[in-house]
Amino acid sequence: MSKKNLRIGVIGAGRIGIVHSGSVSDTPGAEIAVIVDAIEESAAKLAAQYGAKHTTNVDDIFSKGDVDAIIVGSPTPTHVDLISRAIDAGIHVLCEKPVDLDINRANSIKEKVANAKTNVSIGFNRRYDPNFAAVYARVKAGELGNLEQLILTSRDPAPPPQAYVAVSGGIFRDQVIHDFDIARYFVGDIVEVSTFATNAFSSEIKAEGDFDTALTNMRSADGKLVSIVSSRHAAYGYDQRLEAFGEKGMLQVSNMAPTTVRSFKADHSEQRDPYLDFFLERYAASYRKELALFIESIETGKQLNPTYEDGCKALILADAATESAKTGRVVKL
Amino acid sequence: MSKKNLRIGVIGAGRIGIVHSGSVSDTPGAEIAVIVDAIEESAAKLAAQYGAKHTTNVDDIFSKGDVDAIIVGSPTPTHVDLISRAIDAGIHVLCEKPVDLDINRANSIKEKVANAKTNVSIGFNRRYDPNFAAVYARVKAGELGNLEQLILTSRDPAPPPQAYVAVSGGIFRDQVIHDFDIARYFVGDIVEVSTFATNAFSSEIKAEGDFDTALTNMRSADGKLVSIVSSRHAAYGYDQRLEAFGEKGMLQVSNMAPTTVRSFKADHSEQRDPYLDFFLERYAASYRKELALFIESIETGKQLNPTYEDGCKALILADAATESAKTGRVVKL
Amino acid sequence: MSKKNLRIGVIGAGRIGIVHSGSVSDTPGAEIAVIVDAIEESAAKLAAQYGAKHTTNVDDIFSKGDVDAIIVGSPTPTHVDLISRAIDAGIHVLCEKPVDLDINRANSIKEKVANAKTNVSIGFNRRYDPNFAAVYARVKAGELGNLEQLILTSRDPAPPPQAYVAVSGGIFRDQVIHDFDIARYFVGDIVEVSTFATNAFSSEIKAEGDFDTALTNMRSADGKLVSIVSSRHAAYGYDQRLEAFGEKGMLQVSNMAPTTVRSFKADHSEQRDPYLDFFLERYAASYRKELALFIESIETGKQLNPTYEDGCKALILADAATESAKTGRVVKL
Amino acid sequence: MSKKNLRIGVIGAGRIGIVHSGSVSDTPGAEIAVIVDAIEESAAKLAAQYGAKHTTNVDDIFSKGDVDAIIVGSPTPTHVDLISRAIDAGIHVLCEKPVDLDINRANSIKEKVANAKTNVSIGFNRRYDPNFAAVYARVKAGELGNLEQLILTSRDPAPPPQAYVAVSGGIFRDQVIHDFDIARYFVGDIVEVSTFATNAFSSEIKAEGDFDTALTNMRSADGKLVSIVSSRHAAYGYDQRLEAFGEKGMLQVSNMAPTTVRSFKADHSEQRDPYLDFFLERYAASYRKELALFIESIETGKQLNPTYEDGCKALILADAATESAKTGRVVKL
Repeated sequence: MSKKNLRIGVIGAGRIGIVHSGSVSDTPGAEIAVIVDAIEESAAKLAAQYGAKHTTNVDDIFSKGDVDAIIVGSPTPTHVDLISRAIDAGIHVLCEKPVDLDINRANSIKEKVANAKTNVSIGFNRRYDPNFAAVYARVKAGELGNLEQLILTSRDPAPPPQAYVAVSGGIFRDQVIHDFDIARYFVGDIVEVSTFATNAFSSEIKAEGDFDTALTNMRSADGKLVSIVSSRHAAYGYDQRLEAFGEKGMLQVSNMAPTTVRSFKADHSEQRDPYLDFFLERYAASYRKELALFIESIETGKQLNPTYEDGCKALILADAATESAKTGRVVKL
Repeated sequence: MSKKNLRIGVIGAGRIGIVHSGSVSDTPGAEIAVIVDAIEESAAKLAAQYGAKHTTNVDDIFSKGDVDAIIVGSPTPTHVDLISRAIDAGIHVLCEKPVDLDINRANSIKEKVANAKTNVSIGFNRRYDPNFAAVYARVKAGELGNLEQLILTSRDPAPPPQAYVAVSGGIFRDQVIHDFDIARYFVGDIVEVSTFATNAFSSEIKAEGDFDTALTNMRSADGKLVSIVSSRHAAYGYDQRLEAFGEKGMLQVSNMAPTTVRSFKADHSEQRDPYLDFFLERYAASYRKELALFIESIETGKQLNPTYEDGCKALILADAATESAKTGRVVKL
Repeated sequence: MSKKNLRIGVIGAGRIGIVHSGSVSDTPGAEIAVIVDAIEESAAKLAAQYGAKHTTNVDDIFSKGDVDAIIVGSPTPTHVDLISRAIDAGIHVLCEKPVDLDINRANSIKEKVANAKTNVSIGFNRRYDPNFAAVYARVKAGELGNLEQLILTSRDPAPPPQAYVAVSGGIFRDQVIHDFDIARYFVGDIVEVSTFATNAFSSEIKAEGDFDTALTNMRSADGKLVSIVSSRHAAYGYDQRLEAFGEKGMLQVSNMAPTTVRSFKADHSEQRDPYLDFFLERYAASYRKELALFIESIETGKQLNPTYEDGCKALILADAATESAKTGRVVKL
Repeated sequence: MSKKNLRIGVIGAGRIGIVHSGSVSDTPGAEIAVIVDAIEESAAKLAAQYGAKHTTNVDDIFSKGDVDAIIVGSPTPTHVDLISRAIDAGIHVLCEKPVDLDINRANSIKEKVANAKTNVSIGFNRRYDPNFAAVYARVKAGELGNLEQLILTSRDPAPPPQAYVAVSGGIFRDQVIHDFDIARYFVGDIVEVSTFATNAFSSEIKAEGDFDTALTNMRSADGKLVSIVSSRHAAYGYDQRLEAFGEKGMLQVSNMAPTTVRSFKADHSEQRDPYLDFFLERYAASYRKELALFIESIETGKQLNPTYEDGCKALILADAATESAKTGRVVKL
């Protein structure tokens, strides 16, 4: 390739940083310039894997002039500040969800982002899952006629550690926010939210004042209905389904198992293995597509990924669901 | 058989009366004594099919002493009165849902029913669908551990005629009432209901002040969450699914197609035919089981079918969903 | 019904006689006149169930003038003689497969059958299974273009008792003969047969000089290829599949499970129950259809079921497969 | 990585050479040293894609000392000679199937290969497909008890060009040879082969004296039965299925579709897209695994891929099937 590679700084060497580093490594036209993590060992280990530099000081990103773009996978409270500094430094930024846990803080840089000369994208990668994307394209092409109902099932295989739950902002801002983005992607702006949540199984999550199980109904500005089924566990693996129902029929996304093998025995038939365990495998393709679109956005100047505003709007829905769950009331937006 | 057949009067020769007459005819130990319908032609036609008598005068049932039990499939406003007269006449009664459109009127004979010497059963036949019943048995046997979520999808293939909608009591009292009963059957008493409903496709239903599409979330007294997805149409046939989700996994009921045939062509793979069109085929087995349990109840003196109280409680949920849909508020019970 | 019922004598009160008696009982326009079985207790028990007469003397059928038709489910060596006597007595006959174990004996009445004034039908009921029939109709309507391959999988859930095996004529004349008929039904006359058979699991079947496992390839007169996969056992239930493959695609018949329920747990997903156990359940609908066509044939004078000649031709294929399996050579017809 | 990369020469820049080049590029520890193709444009184009050298002169491989291993994807007649020269030059070789079209020529270097100091592997990649490999591991672990039948369905999406057919050695040596290897992998040595083949659809294939459709039955030395269903076309995509049937049940490999999306409309339900089109997508994972095992074999000195002898034995089965198809006789080995 004669074209110069995009030099990417990966901020945060945790689980999501590892995923993004893998995507960068697999993507022609991009290279990992530096890995940043407060824990030097984590940064060093991940950097070594890809022959990249590492640092514990995030300021290096903005002072050294050796990165063109950053992928932000550090803890949520750092997001707004890093986006803001990246804009100032002329660095493109792909930031993980959520933009912040506080919508006011998120809003505080909205105008700055709107006027940024660099690309600011938010990591709602599910839009690019080949299955979700195929249904989206077919719905938008009118295959179902008027879309009437969107049903999302989203159950994690197992709950996060209690320490993570404590700072996560709660199930709606941490987990369901992906579904809020998919809902908005399919049906546009939401005007009503009603959530029933409960503590069905985890005393640890309950101890943090958070829920482990929830049902959310929403209504879009143009009258479409959305149902989101959420749980922090699923014995059979990562449960990620979508059902788009309309005038002319239905399109469904089913789950992904590691193989196509089926077993037939004295006590069962048609049995498959449990589903892919979690987002690293289940959404591997969508993380790669997200990065490819980020790079294409930078090259073409077009915004191809979800915007900062999308990030704020999903957060507003998470706030509404949280309020509805806690007050037992329908929240209008 | 040396035992005398149970002589059954079928009241109402419409669609549901035809179903029940077929079940009686297929059931050893029962016979159709008389078909009653205000439209003589309908009564005569159905009676002829089974070599039974017919009448347009429902009083004959109670005065002539030639029926042991009645199956009530006449219009809803007649239900309470017929149940009451059956009790007085010492006649057993299996009455179609809903018990009435007005909970106060339904309640007015509650005590009388409670003290009745004859059997009074309500036709929530879905409990006896072999698929739903299998999941119910496995859930109650503890196979899922604690049940956390119950997801019901219930879409009719096509809306009823406008004239029927006008007197139906609305989607919740007419259609979703079956799902309310199934919900109660699985999770017990309900304490909170939140419904979003809309007019997605039918101007006729809208003209009657009724909805064609709805999402209902409910919470049981012991904290289980229930989601009901409802529509008055489905291009691909009768959509009747159930998903019981718990601590140890999930059990699903899928839809039934007329054959097991799958097609593979240049533009598709694994394609099945549309699903069974409507309740007569889809729930054929459950109508037969319901009747068998009714007969067994009469013989043994045990109440095996849903009770009049079950009928009232499902109606209360239908009222709550209607109120929630119209006010945009969560309804507590 | 003003029309007089067809009075049917059921010969043989064993497993298949029980199936046919149930079908007759369910079929308007037909009634069981008498049950014949050499074991009086069996005859009496089945007769009592349907309020019919019984006898141990098959001559009663032909002498008393009180049956219009017989269904022959007695042991194979009786078939040819009963068909012959039925023709002489002006009685219609639906005879179970195989027509005989000896093609010469079967051929001995071929001309008589051809000139018979009564209906003679052979019980290859699978043609009327709703799944097989749907694929047949679609293939004949040209949906696949030229049919190129027909793949039949036919595995019994468990082997028959050794005593039955001893007089069964072997796996090809007893079990696979159904598949030979289906093959002829789809692709017409067969000109080449190659069979590999083995004793994979049953020492009892081996002791009778019979096989428990076989693969048969066949070629039709017009060049279509047929594969038949056979086994005398299947841990997961009755395995009855068909795959019609042609120019424009493929149509498949899958197996039938007792419910649509699927289970998802820590060690599996999408698990169904084992398949329906055996032919009584699996082919219940096709036995009823077979009988309905037999009655219609009698009423209209049209031959709607498989003919005696079909019975002979399937037997010829069973003989060819037996010869191929034993000699290790391809057999040309 | 401190370890020196394995320098690989890719011989043949056609379809399969492109696949292998992609695998090498994706594999840590390996690099493409040079691309060889008689057509310079092809070699140059592929080389440019990976920043490798290219040449039209295969002698360069053996004379320049800059390759450690070769992957042979050039036309079949070159295979034996290239393997032989690689052994002489101390170069490891992974050679595509078939080893040759003439078993005598293949045998001529058998002893040389047996005594080679370098690794010689044959590219029967399907063994490493994650689905086939999972069933293989479960069968070998005894999950099915005794394996009784192995059913392989293998239909290409569309036939190769006539020019390719002309030099392919015929359907058995070119296409079905993969299934012969899988059969041997599962059941060991084969002692009987019976093949029915025909020209069902392609006049071009017929013009070359080759078949487009075949059914092959085989028997293993220890009595297991194998059925192979073959076609040179399939309207619905690449049809690659396996069914292992045994004492305790069955394990099946199904086909792979590009997404998990299912469609439900007025004229169908549960419809998926056509299957993945061909081997590049369908077997992408198995090509990568094959290469990884080749590299591991070189590093450890263990033979982990199919051997040259496996290549010869599959060819012998292809010869036997060809003979059986042409003579109409069972072939004993």
